[in-house]
Order: sequence, then C-alpha cells, then structure tokens
Amino acid sequence: MAEERRNIMSYETVELDDENSALVIPDQTKLPNEVDILHLTRQQEIWDAIYLLQVRGAPAIGVAAAFGVYLAAKEIQTEDRKEFDAKFHDAKEFLNSARPTAVNLSWALNRMERVVKDHPEASVSEMKALLKAESIAIKDEDVWMCRSIGEYGLTLIKDGDGILTHCNAGQLATSKYGTALAPIHLGREKGMHFRVFCDETRPLLQGARLSAFELQEDGVDTTLICDNMASQVMKNGWVNAVFVGCDRVAANGDACNKIGTSGVAILAKYYGIPFYVLGPTSTIDMSIEKGEDITIEQRKPEEVTEMWYKKRMAPEGVKVFNPAFDFADHELISGIVTEYGIARPPYTESLKEIFRKKAEAEKAKK
Amino acid sequence: MAEERRNIMSYETVELDDENSALVIPDQTKLPNEVDILHLTRQQEIWDAIYLLQVRGAPAIGVAAAFGVYLAAKEIQTEDRKEFDAKFHDAKEFLNSARPTAVNLSWALNRMERVVKDHPEASVSEMKALLKAESIAIKDEDVWMCRSIGEYGLTLIKDGDGILTHCNAGQLATSKYGTALAPIHLGREKGMHFRVFCDETRPLLQGARLSAFELQEDGVDTTLICDNMASQVMKNGWVNAVFVGCDRVAANGDACNKIGTSGVAILAKYYGIPFYVLGPTSTIDMSIEKGEDITIEQRKPEEVTEMWYKKRMAPEGVKVFNPAFDFADHELISGIVTEYGIARPPYTESLKEIFRKKAEAEKAKK
Repeated sequence: MAEERRNIMSYETVELDDENSALVIPDQTKLPNEVDILHLTRQQEIWDAIYLLQVRGAPAIGVAAAFGVYLAAKEIQTEDRKEFDAKFHDAKEFLNSARPTAVNLSWALNRMERVVKDHPEASVSEMKALLKAESIAIKDEDVWMCRSIGEYGLTLIKDGDGILTHCNAGQLATSKYGTALAPIHLGREKGMHFRVFCDETRPLLQGARLSAFELQEDGVDTTLICDNMASQVMKNGWVNAVFVGCDRVAANGDACNKIGTSGVAILAKYYGIPFYVLGPTSTIDMSIEKGEDITIEQRKPEEVTEMWYKKRMAPEGVKVFNPAFDFADHELISGIVTEYGIARPPYTESLKEIFRKKAEAEKAKK
Repeated sequence: MAEERRNIMSYETVELDDENSALVIPDQTKLPNEVDILHLTRQQEIWDAIYLLQVRGAPAIGVAAAFGVYLAAKEIQTEDRKEFDAKFHDAKEFLNSARPTAVNLSWALNRMERVVKDHPEASVSEMKALLKAESIAIKDEDVWMCRSIGEYGLTLIKDGDGILTHCNAGQLATSKYGTALAPIHLGREKGMHFRVFCDETRPLLQGARLSAFELQEDGVDTTLICDNMASQVMKNGWVNAVFVGCDRVAANGDACNKIGTSGVAILAKYYGIPFYVLGPTSTIDMSIEKGEDITIEQRKPEEVTEMWYKKRMAPEGVKVFNPAFDFADHELISGIVTEYGIARPPYTESLKEIFRKKAEAEKAKK
C-alpha cells in the first residue's frame, strides 16, 4: 500500500534506517506525480539510485554515498582488518563509479575511507561504529551547511523579490533547505515571500518536476517556464536575482552546473541582473584552475529524443549533443555563496579567503 | 495501403492535384515518425488541416488557402457570376476562420478574391481558370522568394560552416527551401555541406520534429540539442552563424520570432557569432515602430506541463508563463535577409532601401 501522501518538505531527502540496514530516499524520478519512498539495502540498488538520479544533487549524493558505503561496511563479514579495509575500498570504488562528474560523491567516499585509514588499530566492529558516526556527521554538516548558505543568501535579496533558478538545487538536492533554494525556504520559515521562476531544465526536467514541486509545497509563488523563456522573464523586469547551485567550482570562480547555466548567466549579464552561485565549500575544487579543465559528462541521446514522451519526438538516427553540465564563466558571476560567507570577484583571492575562514572555524571547533 | 516512404524533400509541402481536385500535403502533426500524405478534397478537411496544424508555417498556410479556395470555386455549380461571387466569398470566409490570427491566411485569400473583383466581366469558367492561375502564382512566388532568400543567405556562409537554428523556418513551413533553412537546402543542391545544430524549441518541439527531420532527409550533418545547450555549442566554437526565421519584423529591425529567439541572439552576441534573421518582406511591418509594440500571444499551460508526455511533468496547479514569441532586439541582429537583399544596421534606413528595391522590381515586371 502506498504511504500516505505528506508534504514533500516533511521528508528527509536522504535518511539512514540503520535498524533495517537501508538507505531511505524518495524516488526523485517519480516526482511530482508520485511520492515513492525507496528502502535500498543492496549495493547495486544504491549504485543504481545514484546512477539513475533517484537521488541527485551534489550534497544529497554525498550523504547517500556516505550512508551507502557505511551499509556496505556493515555487511563485510570478517574480523580481519586487512580484509575489511580491502573490501571497504572495493565498495567505495564501486559507488564512486556511479557518477563521474559529481565531486561530492568521491569527496564523501574519500572522507569515509579517511576514517578507516586514520584508525588502523580499531577492530572491525569499532570501525563500523566509527563509519556510522562519520556518515551521520556528513549529513548533519550538510544540514548546517545549507542553513548557513541560506542565511548568507538571504542578505542578497529582500522580501517580495523575484528569483529565477535553474535545475534543482533545493531541499531535494540536499538533506534540508537546499543550496540555491536555501534562502527561499529559510525565508519562508521567517515569514518572507518570494516569487520564483523555475526553468524547466531540459532534458531531465528537474526544474519542472522538483524545484516547482518543492517550492509550491513550501507555499512559494512559483512560475514554471521553458528554458528558452528565461530571457523574456528577465526582459519583463520580473527577476531581481538569479540563484543557481553548482556541481564544481574552479579556483578562478568558474562554476560548473547543470547544462543551461552558462546561458542563464549570459542572459543575466545582458539584462544587468545579479547572478549568484550557491554551494558548499566541498564543491569548490582549488586544484582545478578553470572551468575548461572540468570534464563534462555526455549523456545518452534518448534523454533528448524519447525520454518522458509518448512517442519519439525526433527523427530516427539524428545526432544528439547532450552534455550534462556547462559552466558559468567567473566574469558572469556576481557572488559565490558558501557556508563560510560570500565570495566576490576576484575569486582567485576571495575563494582562498573562504577557505581561510573555514580552516579557522574548524580549528575553533577542535 | 500506405504510400511507399519517400524522402520528405521529394514532396512539395503544399501541392495542387487539379485532376483529382485535391490539396496534397504531408500531415505535419505526424512527423517525424510517419510520412502521411493527405489528399484533401472537402472544404471541411482543408479547414481542419489549417486549424490542426497539419499544414503550418505562414507561407505554407497562405499557399494551402489559395489552393483551397480555388478548389472551392471549382465546385461552384452555376453560370451566374453574382451567385458565383457570393459563394466564393462564403468559401473564402470559411477558410479564413481556420486560423483567425494567421496573417498569410487572410493575405492569400484576399489576393484570390481580388482576382474575382478585378474581373467582373469574366464568365464563371474563365474565373475558375483565372483563380487557378492566381493560386499557382502565389505558390510560384513563394518558391521564388525562398530561393532568393537562400541565394542571399548563402553569401553569408561558406562550405563546411556550422549553423545554429531555432524552431522550423524550413521547407516544411513554405512551398520549398524555407526561409532560415533556405541557404542550407539550396547549398545542398549546389553540392555544399553544412553542419546544422537544431534547438529542439520547447514547448512545441518544431526543431526536433521538423527542422532536424527535414535537414537529415536532405543529407545535412544534423545535431539536435535542447534549447539550453546552445550556449555550450557556441562556446565549443561549432557555430559560424545563427539563422532564424521571423514572424514579424518592426521598422527598427526588432525581429519577433518563436519564443527563445531573443535568448539565442544574446548568446550569439556574447560569443561574437553573427545572428541573421531570414524572412520575406511580407513579414516586415513598417507600421510597427519597435518590438515592444508587438502583442505577444500567451498560450496554454498544458503545452509546457503535459503535451507530448506520458504523464504530467509538473506539479498540479503550478503557474506557467508560456509566451509563443519573443523578439531579438535589433542591436543583436547582424543582418535581415529578404528576397530583395540583406538589410544591415541601421535598420530604420536599410529596411526602407529593401522596400525601394522591391517596388523597383515590381515596376520592372509590369
């Protein structure tokens, strides 16, 4: 029997059911028509969930991977640490292969493996407990991170503003609040009202299926548009700021995000509208100099020609270019909003400053 | 039995089969999955074909209406001119009601009725012959117009170039060649090769269903993209020029066209790629000062949320902004290609010059 339909904002996007050794997620490929809560116990199911975008959004993928690799560790039947470590490494590499571009996936998995490496003397059962604690910490930090991004983001807009967003960097992409949509959801908690325009975001339609859905569920004045209508919405003067998430930010501020982001950034520049990238410091990769150095995943033609449709909408055999991401050039970005503050141009300097603040905060915590 | 599947380029978009008193068109609502050639003999069928967009594109609609009203005239069983004229007028008004806002529809039908009014002394059978000749002239002029736009457009590109186009302003929108795609099809006749990127053009997907189809059929190296991928395609250096059609051009050069055109124009400007509008002088309206004066049709939300899909892709009740058109600001347009030459900025001057050339050509013909 289907679970009773609850407001999507009342669900956790990624949840650990330790008692049943399950990763629990709403299947995002079925939204907004159906709220189908998946209980995943097999590693292949978790890999599929990441690959098939049943769970998606960089932070949510990181949390799902952390829980996933903890569940893998839990199943390793040995008391030998060497064997445990080797099997854990294999499980980590397996999950890591589900999405090539998602930096949070490898970040979370590496962080989990770091715990293993940092405790060579621990017993296998101690290791499992440590890994559980680490996976929960990753999620808790994600919630704190999103709230902090939301607080900083709220300083950039005022009650009643119009915001345009692309794809879904909302609560459904993180443990709570989201990144690009964190200021909106947090503002709602504070009784503020915004008017949000959601690009539908072809071909996977995350804007139509997810952003429009979670914003409407949260009581936000939400308008759905096709991606090619953003220019007209901006021209009409309805947009005070653009808020987008990011999958990876280079050291120079180039921000890799869902395909179409570069176009929205160029339009915002043309119309004189501030364009903000909102994301955690974990998506900022100071080892990558510039956007061009980021490998962009190419996806299947069928996503453009067939997916979702009653019948094929393009001629058989036509070539399709279907990049999953592009990047907004740093020159087009008004600010990068992180959990440690807002970086402003020039990013080569300001992003370093963000990491200095982060290091200080982490030092203070210890 | 289904007719043998032939290359779509071997069909005329709108054809008169006088022997069988039929209007012959490929049913464009079934493309690209099925090439279904309709032979329409009843006026209601012809009305339906226009209303249901089985024939679409301003020039093609005009030609279909001209043939349609000629076929209506042919069936009028009287030798009395007064009765003939009255019945012809009724037939004309009937077809004119199929798409009340389509300018070429009423333009072609009024031109046909002008022939009736200009020959009050002709017999009914002479009238029928004159109307047949006029309908064929309307089509011949359309073919000449497209070929001429193609010739001028070809001067803007060279063999091997990459072209990006939006929506369908191709052969399927006209009697032959098309407008935006005329240089490509004409180039093919001359043995040239181009690489064309087709924006799928949400929400009606004319780029995926029609442009990608007719270009592939013509042997063009065709790549389909989602509208939000145009920026990345341009960034990759694959586009030497953008070619789009137009629904109406204002006296200052602002070009109203399918929604998304303004965004493509802004991207082209940003990447330094020339952006050309191709269309007949009949779409240039010197009585309209600027783009802002053109009323933009708003269409149904269901086109964005439901149309084509297996299931609804957006939450119930979400607001949708669905403008049918936008306009490329004249400052973004490198040239407007007409059958009488290429207008260059400043358009307030150059469009007048185009009309002077047209007047001279028409004077010379007489």
